[in-house]
Amino acid sequence: MGLRTGEQYLDAIKVRNKAEVYVLGKEVKDVTTNPFLKPSILSFKATFDAAWDEDTKDLARVWSPFINDETNRFNHIHRSPDDLAAKVKLLRKISHKVGACFQRCVGFDALNTLYITVELMAQHGKTEPKEKFVEYLKTVQKRDLALAGAMTDAKGVRTLKPHQQPNKDAYVRVTEVTKDGIYVSGAKANITGVAASEEIVVLPTRAMGPEDQDYAVAFSVPTDSEGIKIIVGRQLNDARRLEGGEIDGIPYFYNHEGLVIFDHVFVPMDRVFLLRDWQYTGQLVEIFSAYHRQGYGGCKAGLGDVIIGASYNLAKQAGVEKASHIQEKITEEIFLTETMYAAGIAASLNAVQPCPGCWWVNPMHANVTKHLVTRFPSQISQLSVDIAGGILGTAPSEWDLKNPKLREYIAKYLQGIEGYTAEDRIRMVRLLENVSLGVAFQIESVHGAGSPAAQRIMFTRLYDLSYSEEVAKRLAGMKSEVHFTQKTEPWRETETEKLAKSK
Amino acid sequence: MGLRTGEQYLDAIKVRNKAEVYVLGKEVKDVTTNPFLKPSILSFKATFDAAWDEDTKDLARVWSPFINDETNRFNHIHRSPDDLAAKVKLLRKISHKVGACFQRCVGFDALNTLYITVELMAQHGKTEPKEKFVEYLKTVQKRDLALAGAMTDAKGVRTLKPHQQPNKDAYVRVTEVTKDGIYVSGAKANITGVAASEEIVVLPTRAMGPEDQDYAVAFSVPTDSEGIKIIVGRQLNDARRLEGGEIDGIPYFYNHEGLVIFDHVFVPMDRVFLLRDWQYTGQLVEIFSAYHRQGYGGCKAGLGDVIIGASYNLAKQAGVEKASHIQEKITEEIFLTETMYAAGIAASLNAVQPCPGCWWVNPMHANVTKHLVTRFPSQISQLSVDIAGGILGTAPSEWDLKNPKLREYIAKYLQGIEGYTAEDRIRMVRLLENVSLGVAFQIESVHGAGSPAAQRIMFTRLYDLSYSEEVAKRLAGMKSEVHFTQKTEPWRETETEKLAKSK
Amino acid sequence: MGLRTGEQYLDAIKVRNKAEVYVLGKEVKDVTTNPFLKPSILSFKATFDAAWDEDTKDLARVWSPFINDETNRFNHIHRSPDDLAAKVKLLRKISHKVGACFQRCVGFDALNTLYITVELMAQHGKTEPKEKFVEYLKTVQKRDLALAGAMTDAKGVRTLKPHQQPNKDAYVRVTEVTKDGIYVSGAKANITGVAASEEIVVLPTRAMGPEDQDYAVAFSVPTDSEGIKIIVGRQLNDARRLEGGEIDGIPYFYNHEGLVIFDHVFVPMDRVFLLRDWQYTGQLVEIFSAYHRQGYGGCKAGLGDVIIGASYNLAKQAGVEKASHIQEKITEEIFLTETMYAAGIAASLNAVQPCPGCWWVNPMHANVTKHLVTRFPSQISQLSVDIAGGILGTAPSEWDLKNPKLREYIAKYLQGIEGYTAEDRIRMVRLLENVSLGVAFQIESVHGAGSPAAQRIMFTRLYDLSYSEEVAKRLAGMKSEVHFTQKTEPWRETETEKLAKSK
Amino acid sequence: MGLRTGEQYLDAIKVRNKAEVYVLGKEVKDVTTNPFLKPSILSFKATFDAAWDEDTKDLARVWSPFINDETNRFNHIHRSPDDLAAKVKLLRKISHKVGACFQRCVGFDALNTLYITVELMAQHGKTEPKEKFVEYLKTVQKRDLALAGAMTDAKGVRTLKPHQQPNKDAYVRVTEVTKDGIYVSGAKANITGVAASEEIVVLPTRAMGPEDQDYAVAFSVPTDSEGIKIIVGRQLNDARRLEGGEIDGIPYFYNHEGLVIFDHVFVPMDRVFLLRDWQYTGQLVEIFSAYHRQGYGGCKAGLGDVIIGASYNLAKQAGVEKASHIQEKITEEIFLTETMYAAGIAASLNAVQPCPGCWWVNPMHANVTKHLVTRFPSQISQLSVDIAGGILGTAPSEWDLKNPKLREYIAKYLQGIEGYTAEDRIRMVRLLENVSLGVAFQIESVHGAGSPAAQRIMFTRLYDLSYSEEVAKRLAGMKSEVHFTQKTEPWRETETEKLAKSK
Repeated sequence: MGLRTGEQYLDAIKVRNKAEVYVLGKEVKDVTTNPFLKPSILSFKATFDAAWDEDTKDLARVWSPFINDETNRFNHIHRSPDDLAAKVKLLRKISHKVGACFQRCVGFDALNTLYITVELMAQHGKTEPKEKFVEYLKTVQKRDLALAGAMTDAKGVRTLKPHQQPNKDAYVRVTEVTKDGIYVSGAKANITGVAASEEIVVLPTRAMGPEDQDYAVAFSVPTDSEGIKIIVGRQLNDARRLEGGEIDGIPYFYNHEGLVIFDHVFVPMDRVFLLRDWQYTGQLVEIFSAYHRQGYGGCKAGLGDVIIGASYNLAKQAGVEKASHIQEKITEEIFLTETMYAAGIAASLNAVQPCPGCWWVNPMHANVTKHLVTRFPSQISQLSVDIAGGILGTAPSEWDLKNPKLREYIAKYLQGIEGYTAEDRIRMVRLLENVSLGVAFQIESVHGAGSPAAQRIMFTRLYDLSYSEEVAKRLAGMKSEVHFTQKTEPWRETETEKLAKSK
Repeated sequence: MGLRTGEQYLDAIKVRNKAEVYVLGKEVKDVTTNPFLKPSILSFKATFDAAWDEDTKDLARVWSPFINDETNRFNHIHRSPDDLAAKVKLLRKISHKVGACFQRCVGFDALNTLYITVELMAQHGKTEPKEKFVEYLKTVQKRDLALAGAMTDAKGVRTLKPHQQPNKDAYVRVTEVTKDGIYVSGAKANITGVAASEEIVVLPTRAMGPEDQDYAVAFSVPTDSEGIKIIVGRQLNDARRLEGGEIDGIPYFYNHEGLVIFDHVFVPMDRVFLLRDWQYTGQLVEIFSAYHRQGYGGCKAGLGDVIIGASYNLAKQAGVEKASHIQEKITEEIFLTETMYAAGIAASLNAVQPCPGCWWVNPMHANVTKHLVTRFPSQISQLSVDIAGGILGTAPSEWDLKNPKLREYIAKYLQGIEGYTAEDRIRMVRLLENVSLGVAFQIESVHGAGSPAAQRIMFTRLYDLSYSEEVAKRLAGMKSEVHFTQKTEPWRETETEKLAKSK
Repeated sequence: MGLRTGEQYLDAIKVRNKAEVYVLGKEVKDVTTNPFLKPSILSFKATFDAAWDEDTKDLARVWSPFINDETNRFNHIHRSPDDLAAKVKLLRKISHKVGACFQRCVGFDALNTLYITVELMAQHGKTEPKEKFVEYLKTVQKRDLALAGAMTDAKGVRTLKPHQQPNKDAYVRVTEVTKDGIYVSGAKANITGVAASEEIVVLPTRAMGPEDQDYAVAFSVPTDSEGIKIIVGRQLNDARRLEGGEIDGIPYFYNHEGLVIFDHVFVPMDRVFLLRDWQYTGQLVEIFSAYHRQGYGGCKAGLGDVIIGASYNLAKQAGVEKASHIQEKITEEIFLTETMYAAGIAASLNAVQPCPGCWWVNPMHANVTKHLVTRFPSQISQLSVDIAGGILGTAPSEWDLKNPKLREYIAKYLQGIEGYTAEDRIRMVRLLENVSLGVAFQIESVHGAGSPAAQRIMFTRLYDLSYSEEVAKRLAGMKSEVHFTQKTEPWRETETEKLAKSK
Repeated sequence: MGLRTGEQYLDAIKVRNKAEVYVLGKEVKDVTTNPFLKPSILSFKATFDAAWDEDTKDLARVWSPFINDETNRFNHIHRSPDDLAAKVKLLRKISHKVGACFQRCVGFDALNTLYITVELMAQHGKTEPKEKFVEYLKTVQKRDLALAGAMTDAKGVRTLKPHQQPNKDAYVRVTEVTKDGIYVSGAKANITGVAASEEIVVLPTRAMGPEDQDYAVAFSVPTDSEGIKIIVGRQLNDARRLEGGEIDGIPYFYNHEGLVIFDHVFVPMDRVFLLRDWQYTGQLVEIFSAYHRQGYGGCKAGLGDVIIGASYNLAKQAGVEKASHIQEKITEEIFLTETMYAAGIAASLNAVQPCPGCWWVNPMHANVTKHLVTRFPSQISQLSVDIAGGILGTAPSEWDLKNPKLREYIAKYLQGIEGYTAEDRIRMVRLLENVSLGVAFQIESVHGAGSPAAQRIMFTRLYDLSYSEEVAKRLAGMKSEVHFTQKTEPWRETETEKLAKSK
């Protein structure tokens, strides 16, 4: 069986340590023990543990026809709408265990995106990429590899296309092609969980034309390949993890993102899935982003649950959980959280099939999901701040609590309702601070899987505005050509489907 | 085959005209020609036409095992999640045809509610209601009857239970039981489409205790039964329909609601499904309201489409459809509309089964759907007002347009972009005014299927707050008893399921 | 003394009836008795009554140096920030008396706009307009004239300038100049209260260049001048007023807007204040719109008060006014209402002086006020719908109540708490329906004094974005040229002030 | 002259260092050099510098009749509405200089609150407190003292009154009264800027009854009094300041709040202003909170300006500042910022006088101001996150930038538009992160000067709901007792004014 335990993953990631990883300007020797990165490694590990924990293993294990064995869902190719829904449910569950992003979805979505892409290429007569990808997929499933997905480029001047940039490496590109493989240079930014990964699946970040063909490249490489440098980014509250405490920095679980430099990196040819195939970049981006937008309905709802629980408990510690305005605010948190989840479920169960055996999410519902996620977490967060009280920004540190001269005072003045200690209060305040005001909920919710403007572009593309106009004209008694024969939902015809049909 | 055409429905409703219907204080002889009611009749008729129109018949016709024949979906008992989704899709489609509420959902949801209720009663050993109900259902399906559903009582003092009310008839109640049937008195308020119906299915409006048993009654009666009086309610802009014009009052399609008085009405025993069965009232209300809340994801999204189309067309008529702020507003209308729809789809495809062969909606998603519908239509409406411009509140009447002394001036000064006439503009302004600011979108969206507060109560009941608290406590490092063994979604255990299990 | 009573105004407006006014396609002989217009006349009349009512006369009367006597504030030229605040306070008060727009502000703001304009022209050496205007002003104040203000043109194709329009009359223009006066043609749209006015003050609607000089014209004419035709616009619920009832149509107070056609209308030269003075149009529009935006902080807050009172009373009638969620909603209505008012007060008391003796509002605060008014009324309205319950869209008509066969049933089933009758409930439902969902609150709030986009343009013009950027650069430690010497508030330098300075 | 320079303040605060201040569990010897506290000291210092900087000195200096000399506005007793507006303007200005809370307002508002309180006591015949307070005030003004204000108690169980608490010291109380002075014990929580202060002005935190009289105490003490311990609270990102860098932690300006323990602290009798005067606690709290709520219209608008500037600059660095959706978002930030400011200005210029020579803010407008501040900063913050892009949560640290092996890569991949360096981008990202997502904007905005629920209570108390109900009843034609004689604004009658009148 290819399923690894969390411990096996930790052992593997320790060995992988040739990777060149920098944190706060210094190279890290062992990411599993580095205090800045360790919480991220533990979050990533939770995706492996999920396959063994009683309450998640039914969701986390799934039979793969490619290896004729069980695989971890994070490396699975969706085979039904239920598979897609299981992804969302599993993501919500794991969020409950780590209270952070567990960072394995990008690789997961990248695999599924490549699967549809190479299938469409095969349908158009180019079968080799599919053969190579399926081989790669088997390896990933059998070895239960920890994948990062890398999409966003450095981008330079936003208004210019890749080949127009003054910095030719502003987007990752092929600089040389040999018989055995290719050399690539450039940088991918905001790469989630990359320092916790064993391999990086690299995809192009935008639709490209023929002049951009050197930038139309997709491949996979080991994270510790020569020429790769990972600069881990800063986050709100990150420096607290270095204090060595056990409370304030929430040192157990977190997530990270990194700037990944590719400085003349070699990729063997059997790991190259797109090479100057610019025709497929538009739909590839569309497929990936919809997959990734769907997932947010699970993981962000899961963080919503954590925040609801923390808000509720802090209200109890102050003795105000029955005040009507507190109840209203908690109810609102629930509504917002469940709305994000409902959209994610719709995107899954109302899935579409761009090719036989392929299951993509429903693109309109997926974009709705993510757009909700760009708005509601900020509202949930503000509600939680309101419920928690000013203490969220003023509570003493764990070091004050541990100072014998101060401990008694803090115990005396921070206790609310009997049955909860001052330490309980500080612990819950810190959890809420780090989850509710942390980078995963405040920033990644907005920009992950595309900024709000990206979803809005999709809304206008997926929605059939002419049809609605004709509906209105007919009702208003204006001359209208509509005959109400449109049978599919207005937004089913996507770039991807057009490509699928054009075969 | 039991399917009727729209014309057949019109003929039948004409004959039914013994019903005592009052409009603006006067009794109506023929509802199909009365100018106040005719638009409502035409909207109701659209649900029959849907079974014959090319673009909707696949959704509107469905095979029923009860009669072993096709039936109109509005009289169908759901047999799968896809059935539930088909309801939502059909509702959206018919909204495009009438731009109003078509009023047949309450009867539809009442049938499905009674089906689960009598099934649960049967499982508890009381089989007679099920036998009676199935017979009734066959009649309804074979004759393709037009049903109204009646739930909301007059209610009197809101803070008192039925038996505590100073007015004993504040809730509909059984006043006498004979061998052949029962006599009921009271009133049901806000009854959608009742003057367009052939029969009324009456359900209790709240959970009741043993003291309220006389109020725990469910039954069906012909709309023209002796002792029934229907007082049709007023609505925004209603008086315009009496002007006899063809534009300003949108005279073709509308909807109505009525106050239905039951003054010692006899109900034959084979149409009595609940009789003092107060134990089942709580779950009956829960089942009905969730069914009805799910449906709003279809019909209100459909009205959203009409408004989007009208906004877009008015922007085109003024030549501003490409202005970035107009595009942003239309995109926002799309997002809000598609969010309501996505939630309705989730409530359908993620359905639950409270009993074998029964398909209920997902209650959490259904409540999310309706709660969105209490908020987003008002936002869509405001966006449409913004896009349409001040003309929405100041445009001349169709009578000015038809006055030869004024027509030329209006033609000259109301035209915007060439290709659209002043009449086009007035027609579209009136459509938008009547749909966007009309009662169906502004008021029914808020209060139909339960006011916002009702959904909020459900959120706190369906959501497992203790579980989330334990999740937070564990993450914060506080003592917690949670072992993460909870396998079902937190909100799956409803009153209905408890009852189902208790058998 | 120039102050007229409301009755004197009514008598005068009756006599003025040469004006050519059309309602629903028919010419109206006497606007004071026409059932469609009468409520508007009564609202306008309230501005005269205000000068005599005990609770408003201190606000409504003010001493004018021009006539050395008391004048009605609606014809007053502001002489201090307190004058500006008195306007806002008075507007809020009169709203309480009529629950509608009383339509005299546009003329009021037009007078003040012209006063600053001619003053600035005088400072640039063109003194004649000021002389003519002051003479006109004295007449207006002495006779206490009822003025309408007319600004918005028909506009044709929105993206073209006046002189580029295919329809040359899309904007009102001078077609001929004689020694005695000028002839004008075109149309002004959405003219508030015009059928209730004695004279119309006409202003240009946008900044113009030299090619548009024929459109750069400001003047005053009697409403019944030859060649003027007024087509009164439709509004939500307007047809109910024609029923002759006393409840449903709120027949006592309302407001109207009209399309005013100028078909070769002669204006004597002493009433022409701008003639091809295109240089002054930009600031004239800026001055007028800021004055008018400020006022909304008074009148719309006043309507907010009416809605709050109606919501609260309906909650009491149902016995739920103490439910915590009802209290939350009423509190929110208060907050939203008081916010609009606070902004209007700031715009008044923090006024600026573009010329000696001139008091203009604070333009940034005035734009804030109006922009709040484009958003909050819709929210207040939705809250009121929520509080009122479904009855708002389904209550029986007054004609049902008056039908002896129905009256008893309605009395029995519409009563809630003892002490309120069914008639009380219907009366309050109708008030709320007509005020909260009426055109003044739903549409005029959005588009009056400029659509939301117009305020947003002003925000970017009035706000000193470069200054804020320099502030940020300095704090970030980037090279910055800011020396923090900027002494005035960032947004004080307006087009108007630039013009004032340029003298 | 009593005005000190910033440097003089620094020298004084260095000498004061007997105060027992703890940061992260360790006692701090010199707050002016401690890396955690230094940024707070520098922010506080800015209030002294303001009296000497060219662009602020006119606002920051004000003549005091008490000392017949100029004093720093932060120690001034307001003598006019213009004084109150000057406070708001000055606060906005200083925010531009420090991008943080400068912490001197609480002391400022405490002085003004005590001034009205002792004046009202004097009017009721108790003149000694006023005499003592005026003497104290002179000292403060002459020496230009840095005051902290301390109001919020530890509070224990929120639902119990002070004398009911299991912990008798849950509220600060008098434990002993001698001829020379009093002894107090308890703790004050969330005390802004306390470690940067020379004296602490202590006020009761709630209205009290006779049983709570030991808790009804107001006084002033030097910050370094024996028995006082200050435990400085944690904040988002605080640990970065300890890294010794110059960019990431924004080490130049910040703010802090502390838990202040009073362990048997002696207060000389001439510094005791309230002693068991429980009758005055209600209005004291009302006065203070309204003063403090008004101020937020200045300081938070100032932070809004910083965020607008930072957003705009980051958009420019990426080359997208002209994209229409970016412009819409910046415009929205401006609108939200200017709305908070407008409300603060209204609260100032529409001030009320509870006693002759006293100027209090307008309480309704002040509560509106603060309630806006509990909502809008979160929205501004989310807009800024949207504009800034994902880099806000993923940018490399300054230590990466300073690593010669990485610097070149970062320079290459983080640069956007030419003319800005990667360092520019990182600097601006860090500023935005620390200001927009920092504690002052995210948490203090919600809870400072009372949580949202506290303002909502005031709305219902200040608003005359009965009056609005009568207005609605009269308009609806219901029997109403209103005669519209109410002349003052509905909300002018406060607890404070009632007390003032009762003399």
